[in-house]
Amino acid sequence: MDLATLLGIVGAIGIIASAIVIGGSAGTFVNAPGLLIVVGGTIGVVLSQVSLAQFLGSFKVAMAAFMHKDFAATDLIREAVELANVARKEGILALEGRDIEHPFLKKGIDLCIDGHNPDVVAQMLERELDLHIEREETGIRMFKSIGSSAPAMGMIGTLIGLVQMLSNMEDPKSIGPSMAVALLTTLYGAVIANAFALPIAEKLKMILNDDRLNKMLILESVSAIQEGVNPRVLQQSLVAFLPENSRELALEAA
Amino acid sequence: MDLATLLGIVGAIGIIASAIVIGGSAGTFVNAPGLLIVVGGTIGVVLSQVSLAQFLGSFKVAMAAFMHKDFAATDLIREAVELANVARKEGILALEGRDIEHPFLKKGIDLCIDGHNPDVVAQMLERELDLHIEREETGIRMFKSIGSSAPAMGMIGTLIGLVQMLSNMEDPKSIGPSMAVALLTTLYGAVIANAFALPIAEKLKMILNDDRLNKMLILESVSAIQEGVNPRVLQQSLVAFLPENSRELALEAA
Amino acid sequence: MDLATLLGIVGAIGIIASAIVIGGSAGTFVNAPGLLIVVGGTIGVVLSQVSLAQFLGSFKVAMAAFMHKDFAATDLIREAVELANVARKEGILALEGRDIEHPFLKKGIDLCIDGHNPDVVAQMLERELDLHIEREETGIRMFKSIGSSAPAMGMIGTLIGLVQMLSNMEDPKSIGPSMAVALLTTLYGAVIANAFALPIAEKLKMILNDDRLNKMLILESVSAIQEGVNPRVLQQSLVAFLPENSRELALEAA
Amino acid sequence: MDLATLLGIVGAIGIIASAIVIGGSAGTFVNAPGLLIVVGGTIGVVLSQVSLAQFLGSFKVAMAAFMHKDFAATDLIREAVELANVARKEGILALEGRDIEHPFLKKGIDLCIDGHNPDVVAQMLERELDLHIEREETGIRMFKSIGSSAPAMGMIGTLIGLVQMLSNMEDPKSIGPSMAVALLTTLYGAVIANAFALPIAEKLKMILNDDRLNKMLILESVSAIQEGVNPRVLQQSLVAFLPENSRELALEAA
Amino acid sequence: MDLATLLGIVGAIGIIASAIVIGGSAGTFVNAPGLLIVVGGTIGVVLSQVSLAQFLGSFKVAMAAFMHKDFAATDLIREAVELANVARKEGILALEGRDIEHPFLKKGIDLCIDGHNPDVVAQMLERELDLHIEREETGIRMFKSIGSSAPAMGMIGTLIGLVQMLSNMEDPKSIGPSMAVALLTTLYGAVIANAFALPIAEKLKMILNDDRLNKMLILESVSAIQEGVNPRVLQQSLVAFLPENSRELALEAA
Repeated sequence: MDLATLLGIVGAIGIIASAIVIGGSAGTFVNAPGLLIVVGGTIGVVLSQVSLAQFLGSFKVAMAAFMHKDFAATDLIREAVELANVARKEGILALEGRDIEHPFLKKGIDLCIDGHNPDVVAQMLERELDLHIEREETGIRMFKSIGSSAPAMGMIGTLIGLVQMLSNMEDPKSIGPSMAVALLTTLYGAVIANAFALPIAEKLKMILNDDRLNKMLILESVSAIQEGVNPRVLQQSLVAFLPENSRELALEAA
Repeated sequence: MDLATLLGIVGAIGIIASAIVIGGSAGTFVNAPGLLIVVGGTIGVVLSQVSLAQFLGSFKVAMAAFMHKDFAATDLIREAVELANVARKEGILALEGRDIEHPFLKKGIDLCIDGHNPDVVAQMLERELDLHIEREETGIRMFKSIGSSAPAMGMIGTLIGLVQMLSNMEDPKSIGPSMAVALLTTLYGAVIANAFALPIAEKLKMILNDDRLNKMLILESVSAIQEGVNPRVLQQSLVAFLPENSRELALEAA
Repeated sequence: MDLATLLGIVGAIGIIASAIVIGGSAGTFVNAPGLLIVVGGTIGVVLSQVSLAQFLGSFKVAMAAFMHKDFAATDLIREAVELANVARKEGILALEGRDIEHPFLKKGIDLCIDGHNPDVVAQMLERELDLHIEREETGIRMFKSIGSSAPAMGMIGTLIGLVQMLSNMEDPKSIGPSMAVALLTTLYGAVIANAFALPIAEKLKMILNDDRLNKMLILESVSAIQEGVNPRVLQQSLVAFLPENSRELALEAA
Repeated sequence: MDLATLLGIVGAIGIIASAIVIGGSAGTFVNAPGLLIVVGGTIGVVLSQVSLAQFLGSFKVAMAAFMHKDFAATDLIREAVELANVARKEGILALEGRDIEHPFLKKGIDLCIDGHNPDVVAQMLERELDLHIEREETGIRMFKSIGSSAPAMGMIGTLIGLVQMLSNMEDPKSIGPSMAVALLTTLYGAVIANAFALPIAEKLKMILNDDRLNKMLILESVSAIQEGVNPRVLQQSLVAFLPENSRELALEAA
Repeated sequence: MDLATLLGIVGAIGIIASAIVIGGSAGTFVNAPGLLIVVGGTIGVVLSQVSLAQFLGSFKVAMAAFMHKDFAATDLIREAVELANVARKEGILALEGRDIEHPFLKKGIDLCIDGHNPDVVAQMLERELDLHIEREETGIRMFKSIGSSAPAMGMIGTLIGLVQMLSNMEDPKSIGPSMAVALLTTLYGAVIANAFALPIAEKLKMILNDDRLNKMLILESVSAIQEGVNPRVLQQSLVAFLPENSRELALEAA
């Protein structure tokens, strides 16, 4: 589980909330019609851009940002080198039935065992990767859309509040509080966008990028295993996927 | 029909409208000259960017966002596998006169039946796809243009209102209501852009993307059918176009 | 002539003007120093970015947005099929001296008649197209530059007006009108950008895109004519450049 | 020398200055601490992004925007055709010691004379061009950075001024002038960005683009000269680099 | 050490600080809850976008902006030419054990000594370069994220302050100071973004770009050394990586 994401979002919202509570009168900051405009309007806009299925699936996508299980590149390298060892000694068919954790690596090895041509295997894995990226980008786009719609709805709410206040200024005492209420929707929109939707979109992008790099590593491993490359050479070649300072470890571990 | 889009836009505008009505004095929010500036000005600007034919065609394009008939990728895969089965057993000519629902798939199969070279078929379908995308992007650009012109016209309207108010401030009582009226055009522009034009533009982009993926799936199917690939192999290869969790179903169904 | 562009821009500016006139006191909206800052400043900025020749040529470029003569793709297809017919029956030299309306098509046919190699013809036409696009983009960039400079100059003018007003507030009665005057430059900048410069830039982009598609159609036609492709096959292949619903007509007409 | 750039920038700043002077009390617009924040802060930010050498070199880069010597494409074509004539008649070595004005053309011809392979010559010139573009882009990025930092520093200055004014409002008479002073930094930032830094960045981009086109023309000329292409054919091919309406002249002149 | 970056950032912040101190009442500008919202909220948002390890590593990345050791391209060229000289005279194995300063050059030469194929060496170095760029971009993205989150948090803080002030305006004397406090968070966000985070992001991008060019120079050198290219020819070819005016020196020095 990715603690940093949960910690970060809870922390940011907590800090904003405590600043409100410390300032006293936290009740002033709750305004049901304002919340309705911003949250309801944003949901409406996002719903209109996707299909119903995608909208309902978005919660699962958001969960991914928090629950993302990271496959460490070092573990992948170790596993690939092991597989290469076995394949070189006992032939690629010896890998059949082996327990392989990363599903993309498993899929690649299965294609090899099925006896497909190396070119075909590489092409199928590459397409799988490309299409996976396309699908994930829909989720990212949805959170970006929340991040741009919420402030827009906040502004619309504030404009409505201002017009109502300005067209009815008989009681000068009510001007301040009315304006406070009008500003609330802008605040809601800013918090939803900046402390929730945009960070999640950014996190999903980071996850997708890590995932892409891991899959490129696997693609190369599968090709090498199929061609019977020397496991040590494969390992040497794969460490390029690690940052400079963690290569020593990966080479020792193997 | 794509319920989510209709629901979303009607919902967002409904929420905004009800917030106005609940605040009382909904009449304050209707201002004919303001509406004229924002709606008329935006129409003028968009009209100036396209040809008359494209402008009149835009309503049909907008309808597409609501009425979009989605070809499910699973159905396309099933149909392609069926066609591959027939073609493999009885030859490609046996597909002549068959009822094929997706027009792009039909076109591809027709080209095969006409006896064109596989390279030529692939190239013609690819170009058809590229040119289709270019044409659709004109429609998307038009709604984006509405989405950027409406707020600009709203701001122009507000500036005009402010100048009129400021240069004539003899009656202090009229300042508030005059300013309220001035702000209305900004509100109109924001609503048109954020609850109508930009969501439709985004939806059209999503539709175009789904369509592109379906056509890529078809492109591959047609090539495979023409080359007489084993239907099971074709099916295995096409499931990459589906999200991981719906592949099982597609494989069973076939 | 492209009526939509003229209609659109005149319409948008007309609506803004009538909103001003209806509000009474149209005179308030004319401010010579303000106009000087926005118009003069914008001209200065744009002038500094281009050469003198390009600047003076910009009026001709703007005219193109209004006077653009559209070659309909259907006409181009008909002409190309005719030429292909003649070339196939009587040889390519029979096209010499023929009256060909579209200059790019004429150039392509002339290159064929001169006896250049098909590869050379294609390469020369492609480069001609690429360089044409580069040249046109200079014009587009100029109108975009007007569109971003005018609001900036408007803001500078407003800031100057505000500073002058704020540092001299002895007569409270003059505050309103002074502020009105200060806001005028922002209004000028917004109108110039949104109802004039940006729409023209967008229109020029659309024209360039149509032109590019037409030239790609011609490129393909010239190759086919030179290689003696069957005119019916050429026609079948070129209709991909038309939207789905106008293909029937083009095929009948031929 | 490129008069338009100098004229444009001096003109834009002059118009702004005269609007200030005409408004009386030009002295109000000079505020030493404000200037320090905007100019000093911007210099600091830009300095932090580049090396000391690049920063000091920026003045030379800016000068380039004003002093840019344009090689007319028509002159380059004439010179290339001349060289092609000589090379075809007397061999490429006859070009040794010839006076060639454009340094990139000279370099290309020198490489041919040194007896390098056509492929090697083309590759060296292309890389030279790519690396030249990369280097120039550093200068452009610096002026863009000034253009985004100056308004930011202006806003920071205004915020500081507003906080100082608001926390000390005992004398209501001083509110106006204090606010005027606070707004000055925003004005400084807007003028520096919009009437100086961004236009220069844009101009440098235009120069770089012209330069790139000229060098592409030269690249092609050098290849043709080395391969002994017919000078008339070379000329026909190079006119594609000229706008349609100046081709006649170039063909006659030669 | 890269003095310009330190100088620049310290200078920009120093100028802002001194403007505050000169205005008197520097104490007004310190507000603990405001600082907490902006700094704490920004940390939360950034933390949520990266893994814990990346977040803690960011300080090291920032240090890189200040401590960046620049390998001068001239030194690299000199070293590459030396190596080429030795390799040509005594064979590539003579380079074994030699002291090579730049780690990427060392890695390339080591691969050559290990007897890898030229294609394999080039491919491994290229991938190493690509993956290095991907890794560095994570650091850049983090500082960009600070640069966009800090102003957003600043705005949220100001909105909270305004709502609190407006809903409690009984004492008119407190309005000014309350608003001053509300504006402080916007000021904090603007300073953090514009005088710290964005300049560092920009600097890291510049460093990455220089690094990339140096590594491309090395890539070419290693290929040339392995193929036994004449050292003078190599030198001639590498000077293209230097700006025009420093080539003479590099050629003399060698």
